[in-house]
Amino acid sequence: MRALRRLFAAFLALSTFPASAGDTGLDAAAIATAERLREQALAGNAAWDFVAGLTTEIGPRLAGTEADARAVAWTKARFEAMGFDRVYLEPVTFPVWLRHRESAAVLAPFPQPLVVTALGGSVGTDGPLEAEIVEFATLDALKAAPEGSLRGKIAFISNRMQRFRDGRGYGPAVGARSNGAVEAARKGAVAVLIRSIGTSNDRFAHTGAMRYVADVPRIPAGALSNPDADQLVRMIEAGHTVRLRLDISAETVGQYTSHNVIAEVTGRELPQEVVTIGGHLDSWDQGTGAIDDGAGVAITAAAGALIASLEQRPRRTVRVIAYANEEQGLYGGKAYAEARAAEGAVPLHQLGAESDFGAGRIYALRAGVDDAAWPVIERIGQVLAPLGITTERGVGGPGPDVGPIVAKGAPWAQLAQDGTDYFDYHHTPNDTLDKIEPAALDQQVAAYAVLAWLAAETTVDFGSAPAKAAE
Amino acid sequence: MRALRRLFAAFLALSTFPASAGDTGLDAAAIATAERLREQALAGNAAWDFVAGLTTEIGPRLAGTEADARAVAWTKARFEAMGFDRVYLEPVTFPVWLRHRESAAVLAPFPQPLVVTALGGSVGTDGPLEAEIVEFATLDALKAAPEGSLRGKIAFISNRMQRFRDGRGYGPAVGARSNGAVEAARKGAVAVLIRSIGTSNDRFAHTGAMRYVADVPRIPAGALSNPDADQLVRMIEAGHTVRLRLDISAETVGQYTSHNVIAEVTGRELPQEVVTIGGHLDSWDQGTGAIDDGAGVAITAAAGALIASLEQRPRRTVRVIAYANEEQGLYGGKAYAEARAAEGAVPLHQLGAESDFGAGRIYALRAGVDDAAWPVIERIGQVLAPLGITTERGVGGPGPDVGPIVAKGAPWAQLAQDGTDYFDYHHTPNDTLDKIEPAALDQQVAAYAVLAWLAAETTVDFGSAPAKAAE
Repeated sequence: MRALRRLFAAFLALSTFPASAGDTGLDAAAIATAERLREQALAGNAAWDFVAGLTTEIGPRLAGTEADARAVAWTKARFEAMGFDRVYLEPVTFPVWLRHRESAAVLAPFPQPLVVTALGGSVGTDGPLEAEIVEFATLDALKAAPEGSLRGKIAFISNRMQRFRDGRGYGPAVGARSNGAVEAARKGAVAVLIRSIGTSNDRFAHTGAMRYVADVPRIPAGALSNPDADQLVRMIEAGHTVRLRLDISAETVGQYTSHNVIAEVTGRELPQEVVTIGGHLDSWDQGTGAIDDGAGVAITAAAGALIASLEQRPRRTVRVIAYANEEQGLYGGKAYAEARAAEGAVPLHQLGAESDFGAGRIYALRAGVDDAAWPVIERIGQVLAPLGITTERGVGGPGPDVGPIVAKGAPWAQLAQDGTDYFDYHHTPNDTLDKIEPAALDQQVAAYAVLAWLAAETTVDFGSAPAKAAE
Repeated sequence: MRALRRLFAAFLALSTFPASAGDTGLDAAAIATAERLREQALAGNAAWDFVAGLTTEIGPRLAGTEADARAVAWTKARFEAMGFDRVYLEPVTFPVWLRHRESAAVLAPFPQPLVVTALGGSVGTDGPLEAEIVEFATLDALKAAPEGSLRGKIAFISNRMQRFRDGRGYGPAVGARSNGAVEAARKGAVAVLIRSIGTSNDRFAHTGAMRYVADVPRIPAGALSNPDADQLVRMIEAGHTVRLRLDISAETVGQYTSHNVIAEVTGRELPQEVVTIGGHLDSWDQGTGAIDDGAGVAITAAAGALIASLEQRPRRTVRVIAYANEEQGLYGGKAYAEARAAEGAVPLHQLGAESDFGAGRIYALRAGVDDAAWPVIERIGQVLAPLGITTERGVGGPGPDVGPIVAKGAPWAQLAQDGTDYFDYHHTPNDTLDKIEPAALDQQVAAYAVLAWLAAETTVDFGSAPAKAAE
């Protein structure tokens, strides 16, 4: 089928385009439209009103809560008012985790409260738990502890995430959050506390997903704010034995079916072929999910709406996806990919991109496509250049919810955002609308509109994601 | 007595000093010592260890709690280890206010939790209170509301504090906190909520003292974080009637006697005459009181300890005062002034200064002294100039705890700090050690050491505070 499609594309290229379009499959009119979209986005678009509305009228949107249902209904109605050709829901089912109560305090040597939050998925402490803490500088140091050495104790992983524009400090740090409970339990610990995976000294604890494995006891897991972790480290470095009280009430309560909310601008020539852009609709429960990821849904919806406002539809379909429950395991992205795989539609996916790294300006275009399609990416990059965006080859990767379909062979693009401040707010109560700069939002809408339009308009086939990126 | 003292000072000046000292009453040796103190402070001093110790080993120090008693004992022991000639306690009695529980949520039109904190001194809601809110742009707008117009409603004062280096945005804003409950109750309101008196968009609610008056019903008073206040304003501006649930449990529970903790370097010639420097030892309950005001106590104690480490005592006594319960009504400063007034010791107070504006660098020296003593202030300013400090005449005022003795006629000095960021952290859980820059702390210790040393060393009498400053 892909071969047939290529043949058809080649036929179109020969019959429709001037020779100058060359191997980008884009004619001057397509480029002119892209440039117009870019300027139109900078002059005003729907993103700010979208994210202001979503974060004000829904607020926190923890997957599986009644706010999840309200967010789905709100987004569907908003999409329907934005001029798309088609808006629909697709089911996404997952277990529901609820946070009820959380607190921590130093009991000795220096009694005082601590700022703590339960990690997503954690079990509770079953009433207040009192124990000594044992510090580990890293998850690896915890793994190296002797078996049983933490019996009756709380493991405390104290390494601090480093700040970078591209957020690359996250990867080395986040293992403590994901796997700390399992590794601590293997050594006999009764709970694990980590230094928040965050770059700010603001006294917020950062939540985020953690996991258990089948053969290891499930122990409660929480994160301390950076200042609170510092406080414990000072006590420990002074030679004190530190005893804490930890009280977490949280539970996983059955299954819930939410929805991916999808809006389309239907392609005029190849409506079955799609370019997807989107963000995730769910958020953690403590902030209002403005930068994670109201902004991503708003940016891509506004970009899609600009394309929908053109007189002519793009050659292929542009699909905006507000994914369900990214935070607790990429459920929306997985459901989307599985549904496409089941119907053999993965090869129809020309390019997928997700905005899920806050609301900082985009500085790079990256992609995982066939070598033959790279000239299209470069041509798109030329239209993005006035936005301060450079094209980078051989680096990057798809957004989290695009990952599952990329793993099945779909090509991807990435509009890399400046994430310098992202992990200051990420997964905290401080993720609120005021953290978004409206002008930065406009720049991102412009970039997504250009990318989605030109990717949908080119006659070139993007092929499949290079194996490396699909890993 | 003051006249006699002046005569004695004049005699000393004639007999001891070279003519060049002129009307500053300071000889070259005194200036050289001041310069040495300045450089010594910059090279290292006790302030960081002090504030790190206090905030780590005691943490929050709400007046009247057991942490207050621990803080007094800790500070007395620390002062005793710092080389002072005398360390002692003086009683300070005040009512105890305790915060037990606080939460708020929007019930309609868009249900979601809000970040709220009870104001210091507030009564509780006696269980969850549910009511509509009525927004007022300012306290004055609330005062102008018709009598009875808020019956059964919650008044919401939404004006935002402005950011300035000298913190002058605080005065115009803080009336909403101090008097909002009384004014709202006069109109029939069941509670008052204010936008936090704070300059940051971080999602912390700022607490702080409020007051009731005898003839007006006592209604609960709380502050919302800036992002939460924005959220309510957006709902109201969209035309919605906003209904909240507010649940505050707090109470005032009898009297407690804490202590001003005092350390002295005893004067070699006029030990009864004193120069006082200090900060306040209490803090609000949510942060660890690092910038408000662990820093102030640490800076002035470290400065005093540097003076105590000199081979020769200053002419007059240098007294470091860690005041009790500044936050809830300047109790420590008032008790100190009243005790001095009762024993006729106010005229012995040559100069009083308090560090209670965070831990930002000092940029100005100001004073309220007799005109005849201004040349001393100018000379002190010359020694401070290399620290980036300019001398300003006719502006400023004493620190809060110095105010009561200044009102009784004592002269004052002010080392004005850069407070640009102070109200980002002030009275929030985010007031923690990491907000202090060690090098800035050193600069302040240097300035206080120079000021206290030279004010204690000059033969000139500082007279009394000009009437304006004493108002």
